[in-house]
Amino acid sequence: MTMITDITSIDNAPLTGECLEKLDAYWRAANYLSVGQLYLCDNPLLEEPLKIEHLKKMQLGHWGTTPGQNFIYTHLNRIINRYDLNMLYISGPGHGGPAVAAGTYLEGTYSEVYPEVSQDRAGMKNLFKRFSFPGGVSSHASPQTPGSMHEGGELGYSLSHAFGAVLDNPDLIAACVVGDGEAETGPLATAWHSNKFLNPLTDGAVLPILHLNGYKISNPTVLARIPHIELEQLFHGYGYFPLFVEGSDPAIMHQAMAAALEQAVHFLKQIKYNAIEHPGQERPKWPMIILNSPKGWTGPKVVDGKQIEGTFRSHQIPLTVSESSPESHLQMLESWMKSYRPGELFDTNGCLKKEIAEIAPKGNRRMGANAHTNGGLLLRELILPDFQRYAFNVNCPGIMGEGDVHVTGRFLRDVTLLNPQNFRVFGPDETVSNKLEAIFETTSRQWNADININDEYLAPKGRVMEMLSEHQCEGWLEGYLLTGRHGLFNCYEAFIHIVDSMFNQHAKWLKMTREIPWRRKIASLNILLTSTVWRQDHNGFTHQDPGFIDHVINKKSEIVRVYLPPDSNSLLSVMAHCLGSKHYVNVMVAGKHPSPQWLSMDEAVVHCSRGIGVWDWASNDQDCDPDIVMACCGDVPTLETLAAVSILREHFPDLKIRVVNVVDLLKLERQSSHPHGLNDHDFDALFTVDKPVIFAFHGYPWLIHRLTYNRTNNNNIHVRGYKEEGTITTSFDMTVLNEMDRFHLVMDVIDRLPHLGSKGLYLKQNLMDKLVEHKQYINMNGEDMPEIKNWRWKA
Amino acid sequence: MTMITDITSIDNAPLTGECLEKLDAYWRAANYLSVGQLYLCDNPLLEEPLKIEHLKKMQLGHWGTTPGQNFIYTHLNRIINRYDLNMLYISGPGHGGPAVAAGTYLEGTYSEVYPEVSQDRAGMKNLFKRFSFPGGVSSHASPQTPGSMHEGGELGYSLSHAFGAVLDNPDLIAACVVGDGEAETGPLATAWHSNKFLNPLTDGAVLPILHLNGYKISNPTVLARIPHIELEQLFHGYGYFPLFVEGSDPAIMHQAMAAALEQAVHFLKQIKYNAIEHPGQERPKWPMIILNSPKGWTGPKVVDGKQIEGTFRSHQIPLTVSESSPESHLQMLESWMKSYRPGELFDTNGCLKKEIAEIAPKGNRRMGANAHTNGGLLLRELILPDFQRYAFNVNCPGIMGEGDVHVTGRFLRDVTLLNPQNFRVFGPDETVSNKLEAIFETTSRQWNADININDEYLAPKGRVMEMLSEHQCEGWLEGYLLTGRHGLFNCYEAFIHIVDSMFNQHAKWLKMTREIPWRRKIASLNILLTSTVWRQDHNGFTHQDPGFIDHVINKKSEIVRVYLPPDSNSLLSVMAHCLGSKHYVNVMVAGKHPSPQWLSMDEAVVHCSRGIGVWDWASNDQDCDPDIVMACCGDVPTLETLAAVSILREHFPDLKIRVVNVVDLLKLERQSSHPHGLNDHDFDALFTVDKPVIFAFHGYPWLIHRLTYNRTNNNNIHVRGYKEEGTITTSFDMTVLNEMDRFHLVMDVIDRLPHLGSKGLYLKQNLMDKLVEHKQYINMNGEDMPEIKNWRWKA
Ligand SMILES: Cc1ncc(C[n+]2csc(CCOP(=O)(O)OP(=O)(O)O)c2C)c(N)n1
Ligand SMILES: Cc1ncc(C[n+]2csc(CCOP(=O)(O)OP(=O)(O)O)c2C)c(N)n1
Ligand SMILES: [Mg+2]
Ligand SMILES: [Mg+2]
Repeated sequence: MTMITDITSIDNAPLTGECLEKLDAYWRAANYLSVGQLYLCDNPLLEEPLKIEHLKKMQLGHWGTTPGQNFIYTHLNRIINRYDLNMLYISGPGHGGPAVAAGTYLEGTYSEVYPEVSQDRAGMKNLFKRFSFPGGVSSHASPQTPGSMHEGGELGYSLSHAFGAVLDNPDLIAACVVGDGEAETGPLATAWHSNKFLNPLTDGAVLPILHLNGYKISNPTVLARIPHIELEQLFHGYGYFPLFVEGSDPAIMHQAMAAALEQAVHFLKQIKYNAIEHPGQERPKWPMIILNSPKGWTGPKVVDGKQIEGTFRSHQIPLTVSESSPESHLQMLESWMKSYRPGELFDTNGCLKKEIAEIAPKGNRRMGANAHTNGGLLLRELILPDFQRYAFNVNCPGIMGEGDVHVTGRFLRDVTLLNPQNFRVFGPDETVSNKLEAIFETTSRQWNADININDEYLAPKGRVMEMLSEHQCEGWLEGYLLTGRHGLFNCYEAFIHIVDSMFNQHAKWLKMTREIPWRRKIASLNILLTSTVWRQDHNGFTHQDPGFIDHVINKKSEIVRVYLPPDSNSLLSVMAHCLGSKHYVNVMVAGKHPSPQWLSMDEAVVHCSRGIGVWDWASNDQDCDPDIVMACCGDVPTLETLAAVSILREHFPDLKIRVVNVVDLLKLERQSSHPHGLNDHDFDALFTVDKPVIFAFHGYPWLIHRLTYNRTNNNNIHVRGYKEEGTITTSFDMTVLNEMDRFHLVMDVIDRLPHLGSKGLYLKQNLMDKLVEHKQYINMNGEDMPEIKNWRWKA
Repeated sequence: MTMITDITSIDNAPLTGECLEKLDAYWRAANYLSVGQLYLCDNPLLEEPLKIEHLKKMQLGHWGTTPGQNFIYTHLNRIINRYDLNMLYISGPGHGGPAVAAGTYLEGTYSEVYPEVSQDRAGMKNLFKRFSFPGGVSSHASPQTPGSMHEGGELGYSLSHAFGAVLDNPDLIAACVVGDGEAETGPLATAWHSNKFLNPLTDGAVLPILHLNGYKISNPTVLARIPHIELEQLFHGYGYFPLFVEGSDPAIMHQAMAAALEQAVHFLKQIKYNAIEHPGQERPKWPMIILNSPKGWTGPKVVDGKQIEGTFRSHQIPLTVSESSPESHLQMLESWMKSYRPGELFDTNGCLKKEIAEIAPKGNRRMGANAHTNGGLLLRELILPDFQRYAFNVNCPGIMGEGDVHVTGRFLRDVTLLNPQNFRVFGPDETVSNKLEAIFETTSRQWNADININDEYLAPKGRVMEMLSEHQCEGWLEGYLLTGRHGLFNCYEAFIHIVDSMFNQHAKWLKMTREIPWRRKIASLNILLTSTVWRQDHNGFTHQDPGFIDHVINKKSEIVRVYLPPDSNSLLSVMAHCLGSKHYVNVMVAGKHPSPQWLSMDEAVVHCSRGIGVWDWASNDQDCDPDIVMACCGDVPTLETLAAVSILREHFPDLKIRVVNVVDLLKLERQSSHPHGLNDHDFDALFTVDKPVIFAFHGYPWLIHRLTYNRTNNNNIHVRGYKEEGTITTSFDMTVLNEMDRFHLVMDVIDRLPHLGSKGLYLKQNLMDKLVEHKQYINMNGEDMPEIKNWRWKA
């Protein structure tokens, strides 16, 4: 690698006349194909005069962003060719679907995955018709689009995805188009700061291209209406060097864009060079491009007396053409399409002319063929150490542990170590707080801003990514996974709702890619939730929300998995399973505080692979039918259930109790509703067909009802869980406030078993007194009664 | 108002020695009280040597942010006094709870609402003990804290709340402390742009104070580790004029902070002056303060050989003091507390000395007494026009409407008109797309950046707030509501999940304030969801998610309400009801496309106040028991149900069908679970105890099961709804993909009623053929079959 010359020496009109011509032709071809997708179902080459019958009846899609994205795609093609770049394209405003379809069709990648959309008249007609058409392809850059690893339906995540994609891909450049409307979203506004985390030596580069076309749906954008100087300051402040490309005259704009890309590439090469030759230098200032061009560029100028090009009115269909629209509209559409001079672009078979087609890169350099965008192609199996080696020694049920997440931290440390280039841990500044600190025994948090003497576990290179933005963590991780790597997001349980909608979109992506034959499976999105609702030391009510799992299970059952391991060994087993899995979203909920342990490693392995099961050692119905089933799911509910069981066993030695523990929540679903679901026979065997079931659940109690409503014994299932009662208080008091504590569970049993008679009645009264005593004690002492704190399971 | 002098003339050391002394004493008092809250349960004035028995056993809370917030609060007190400002305080990092408690305690407002926490020794002891203690107060600036309208448990919303608070409050200044960690969140990162929307004439001002203490939980912050010049550029780029206050020497810092606040207030007065004297000038550059001071300032410097002050280690409890900690820790705590020289601050009764207390403002100028922070105090009833005047004329069921939301737009237009100072509509650039454009007949979107000739409905003053950030819309609206005003958020149904976690926090706030006697009820948070899952013209699968209501009903039943009006008149009725309600979160789901209308206004009023009911005109079981109950909830399900009913009536004239429509979703809950819930008797009367119920539902089908699992007839309820199948397709095909279409509903009936015999069998086969025909037709034509499109209910 040689030292790069000063960028000021870069030609500001680098294109020869011939090259400019070709680029412009290529762009016109893309624009032509885009308009065709919005409008036509026949007569694709306009060989006949355009008639209403050639048009789709429902004209759908977004024109406004499309010509700008075509312009960008075309110029990226040129620069890829010139410097043999490994580049992928992210369309932030993914509703510019026609642009990515046009771009990949022109370069040939589209026809490779969809042979019926061939590069000729018939194929072009198919391309047009299938866009936004029933049975066809969706209107966004989507899983169906080759070269797309980002959908852009819900705006805001493009830049986080781009940064996630280039981590550990030092040769990759993610060109990321950011809509100026999209830039107003919160996630996008903070994503610019990702540049403080990128390592120029070991990671690739993101080239953000702010698409400043001035408008969103029906409003101007903030960034388009602030003074130029503020815009510049803003991006300098974000740590970028903005390169402006501004105007609307194609000839001038082609030169300006080409020059800006030359500059940007020189910047990037300089940064790489410096990183190699002068390691340890200060964080680089990364280039970015601000493309200020009209929305709906080259489209209809004025329709029915209203300005369209360069206004918000070009956002969707700029010109409606139907039987009931003015006749002039049809003519306008025809002359609009002809303004791209299709005859100069396509040969008589409808194939792009050779000399124009040269603009496209070749083979895998074509952005539609970049393997990183079909991550499964590059996926390498994660090397997992034997998780059983990290076992917590449980010689008898009930001994105190050292924090379930803490124990798993050591396993994750070694996963990190064994997979130094394709596994990362993400978290919003909570990895230590969540007790995963073992990871920092061998790696650091990656950080490329300043480091001070008192900092801990920070380094320019590291396997942990932390920023106080759940959106960023999720977005980075998604980008990392989508490009064929592995990872884990650790997060406070309550605040994972911040990314509810991002989870939605990712789950939808997984569902769709599963159905597309040329898409390969990627690693699962693994989410570890801790600092849960039941244990909020320094925080209170605001930090209590176990509802993410309710949200998750609304998505397709082939995609989602939810685990609530009750102790350290079961968490280890679940974690190893999830890290090895593909194409799921796995949610693991676990405790970080020292708490009783129940299962030896051998038992945990068996229990977790079953996912649900009777705990033999805690039950006494081995020889007969149970009188009652005590079910539990989650670490705290398991503790309270077992404490309740010991009270029951003490007072009613003859009572036959069965203890059922659930690790894999979706075992409760019917087999027909979820692949993990128990069949009715097995469910009935576990939960009986007629005995009361007292179910202590980690989350909102009605979730269990939702899962079991169609089981035989459903009317006998009584669930306790979190019901939005909470504050800062002792850990036991949290269960009392929500009536899921051992005493309430015992009282529930007494209520359901009238045959316990007056012995039951007296015990119930005792327990009620106990609850009063508890309240008084904690209000006085600020901690739980010794009999609660020191309670241990006795075999 | 007089012209303000140039700010460069402002003294950069404005404090006299005496004033500086007093300010410092006040700050020390606040710090002393803060440490006391974290540690002590006895010996509040350190009159005895400190012993372990005086300490809380569980030491909880956050020290790091607290001294800085105390510093800010103290200085705001001074500036309020000096300029008689109407100011409120928002603590972004609300975990600085000890600071707001100390601040309000010192100024007297705390004792006014909690007389047991008096300004004397006994009261101080109470103040200390109750903090983060069972039965006490939570650790965050919270509903329990006087002067707080923002909790700050979940970080990121302070600035949006601040801007929402000052809208239409021209004299109000919201001083908003933003944590440098908090500033990394997406919502906060975009909230800075709120200044493009504020009208300096009719709105108040936000004074952001970036609390650059360098750290978050265990990491440095991004903004603390970028060069000074980037930080400056960033905030200039955001459109602010940053005033820096940097250092750690209290004497110097007091002067610097006082000077910065003088400057800021002069700026603000200048802006107001200009707005009045030179209206129509360009958008002002608003001042902000960047306070760069050590985290854990004035706390322990080094503990056990590790630097604490000025590092992340000061975030929570900087020094643990217990029986098992080194003995030196107890001494360190004592000398730390004594370093504030409590003897100089409090008299022998524990009361703040008079001359120091003078720093606090008086009466309602005290930030803890600012009525805007207890918005219900200022709430004026919304003036609602008679919604019945906006009725859509329905002379017979089934006539085509003009879009339910569209009709309600006219009502909202007049609500806006009648309440020009305390009602606003918020939306992420979708108000027109959501068909509420009637509002723009009389008002505009408020926008204080540049306006161009082709813009529509933009003005420096307007009642609609639009930015492409669901977070901002929600945050602004919350701030507006919390300060005693009214509003509506309109949003695409799928993307409302972006604010799931914000909704959580607001619902928790409402729940808690309900239980606090001195808190007054505020207006409901009204959310109108449209562009729903069933009708996505230009978009597809990414825009399909009806799950927000699942999320909402996990929160306390006293707080949440969900409505799915089936047509225009019922939406009008529901909207009027919601706008008039208090202290709820109301979610309304409605269609924006022209669709059949069912109820006259009179019928709609009755039906909506019932919330659920039999549709007489569609049923034929008046004289006997029904054979089948056809239930529906939501506009599209209602349409499909009625179409199914007409097929059934045509083929099986003897079949007794009851049609039940649900508007108020929580009617389905049990009475004991939700205040709207039907009692079992009424439920059984409607849904029968043993007849099949075919239920077509707008959302995920299992939500209905979750609500009805404990009803008598639950095992006979068969629900159809959205099950994550979708793409861009025709509107009828969306129902087919999810098997909620009329044909599937009829087939469901046939399956449940074996007595329909072979007539049923033949019909079923016909309908299956119909579905094939439908697919073929739409794949060919891109629109629905005429018999579907033109189907109308026949009486
Ligand atoms: C989070 C989110 N909110 C709202 C929308 C609805 N929406 C679709 S396109 C659009 C405007 C996009 O503007 P911009 O990013 O500038 O894209 P462009 O101008 O290139 O079309 C909006 C608000 C969305 N897709 N995502
Ligand atoms: C959205 C969100 N994510 C994570 C947390 C957990 N958390 C609590 S405090 C904190 C650090 C806050 O840092 P900063 O805003 O700088 O506050 P300060 O330094 O003043 O304490 C974090 C990450 C949170 N409260 N909210
Ligand atoms: Mg735009
Ligand atoms: Mg901080």
